[in-house]
Amino acid sequence: MKDKLTFGVFGGGSWGTAIVKMLTENLDQVNWYMRSDSAIRHIKKEWHNPNYLSSVEFDVNQLAMSHDINEVVEASDVLIFAIPSAFLDRELQNLTVSLKDKIIFSAIKGIVPESGLIVGEHFNEKYDIPFENIGVLTGPCHAEEVALERLSYLTIACADANKAKMVAKHLKSDYIRTKISDDIIGTEYAAMLKNIYAIAAGIAHGLGYGDNFQSVLMSNAIREMKRFIDRVYKMKRNINASAYLGDLLVTGYSVFSRNRMFGNMIGKGYTVKSAMMEMNMVAEGYYATKSAHDLMDKLQKKSKTPIINAVYQVLYKNKNPKKVFEKLTEKLD
Amino acid sequence: MKDKLTFGVFGGGSWGTAIVKMLTENLDQVNWYMRSDSAIRHIKKEWHNPNYLSSVEFDVNQLAMSHDINEVVEASDVLIFAIPSAFLDRELQNLTVSLKDKIIFSAIKGIVPESGLIVGEHFNEKYDIPFENIGVLTGPCHAEEVALERLSYLTIACADANKAKMVAKHLKSDYIRTKISDDIIGTEYAAMLKNIYAIAAGIAHGLGYGDNFQSVLMSNAIREMKRFIDRVYKMKRNINASAYLGDLLVTGYSVFSRNRMFGNMIGKGYTVKSAMMEMNMVAEGYYATKSAHDLMDKLQKKSKTPIINAVYQVLYKNKNPKKVFEKLTEKLD
Repeated sequence: MKDKLTFGVFGGGSWGTAIVKMLTENLDQVNWYMRSDSAIRHIKKEWHNPNYLSSVEFDVNQLAMSHDINEVVEASDVLIFAIPSAFLDRELQNLTVSLKDKIIFSAIKGIVPESGLIVGEHFNEKYDIPFENIGVLTGPCHAEEVALERLSYLTIACADANKAKMVAKHLKSDYIRTKISDDIIGTEYAAMLKNIYAIAAGIAHGLGYGDNFQSVLMSNAIREMKRFIDRVYKMKRNINASAYLGDLLVTGYSVFSRNRMFGNMIGKGYTVKSAMMEMNMVAEGYYATKSAHDLMDKLQKKSKTPIINAVYQVLYKNKNPKKVFEKLTEKLD
Repeated sequence: MKDKLTFGVFGGGSWGTAIVKMLTENLDQVNWYMRSDSAIRHIKKEWHNPNYLSSVEFDVNQLAMSHDINEVVEASDVLIFAIPSAFLDRELQNLTVSLKDKIIFSAIKGIVPESGLIVGEHFNEKYDIPFENIGVLTGPCHAEEVALERLSYLTIACADANKAKMVAKHLKSDYIRTKISDDIIGTEYAAMLKNIYAIAAGIAHGLGYGDNFQSVLMSNAIREMKRFIDRVYKMKRNINASAYLGDLLVTGYSVFSRNRMFGNMIGKGYTVKSAMMEMNMVAEGYYATKSAHDLMDKLQKKSKTPIINAVYQVLYKNKNPKKVFEKLTEKLD
């Protein structure tokens, strides 16, 4: 690795904005790609992202912003992607420059719908990035609390521990603690699966289940997550570490989680389509549900993931949430 | 065991009231001891407990109530204790009849301050009750949600599986699912420890830590709970089962938890004494903190339980919560 690496963040949403904020605590310059040129102009003039975490004030001299993805890729050694998984493929289509020798970290929680792969696998398979150059940046971390500089813990996973340490060093600050891990597959699946469980928590809440049930659901969810991840990639990991259980809890118990909110609307009687229209966005857990379900189906392990199956039945098979969850409650303990 | 066993519930608080409600779904008669004669008279006349879960309507023909503990002990084969641990010893002092051959279940979450023992151990050591006649009834379960008949899951633990099954059968209903376990020591310690972690969650909240930190705290708490319980009584148990993790979550995330509320006041600057006076009661986690701390100290395992130590420093050593928690954050991950 070079001594002084340049960092580029891809995505102008709340998580991308939070990551840029963290990096500016340590770096003189952060390259930042976002699609919207008008948002860039706003940030340059007003020092705030107009759309996300607008309370965060940036020193614009530290930012090299562009709405040309190629420019930011070329200028950066370490690329941190924080583009919603549903739009990642479309954005990457614009690439004309090479990703060769780039260190790529995913801060995306989800599956790339076009390939059905988690982000790390997608870069590996579609762009020939070797796994030692791929990493994952995961919470538990609401971007909103980074904006408020409330103490948060990140896990930085990479097969190459030096790269994990290097990225961790650049994210660390008074309000950010970091931990490194070598479990890029497990942390990325955990980040994806927790969104499904947050939808389940939302559906249960919408149906009128209470806090007692919610705690049983989360207790079952972490055991189901362990079975799922162990099946996909078995290695020594403590499923109760922050990157797995912590991330599940911060999402499953958050009333601000879009996935939980989406589930809540479904539980209250909205159709999937009307809930999406009402929210004016697609919750990432929606795609994750299909991918996770289909993967377990293929591996003939569906009986091990009753919560994922229940959410799948509701979202994709148009089944009545009340009935599906009544059946689900029989499978929990 | 006799074919038809009689049940007695001891305690007129919210949890005792909830247990009586559950039993009346299955039994023609439930014996019920509570200290307050006026509350008994109120229930007989108005069909509601005037002080706790007052929305629950009882069929008084099903209740055999008395404020004489000996009367209820004599009339019952299975005794379920739901008296706060701080008052248990005082109540038991009134016993003149024998507990021999009684099946005793503890629905108490805490340590008996006078003996420093968890309730099961207390009955074993002080009253010579053999362990096969001792059981534990644990959540995750807010009594308030039982009153609302919201689906809840109980774990019934007893070394004698038949007795666990028998008690479970009498608690089960449309809104109560039961699970049996043979881990009376672990479930009882879990029920006690979770109150300490709820105090920690409250202190953190009071100090201004956010949801990101709360999820990290809970993720560390369950790992700490596992180390603690494994040290006290090692056996095969899944710490992520409802009786351990679920119970931790329902309390740690509850804004109604008295332990969490107590911690919150401490975090906001109340002294221990003024917080207790303001709440007009002693949170059970207060005693649990000292017992748990002293036990780990004795076993020279204090380094394994940083959260318990932090709460102990604040509650018993008059240490500044802000400073203690700043140090604690360095030990979490």
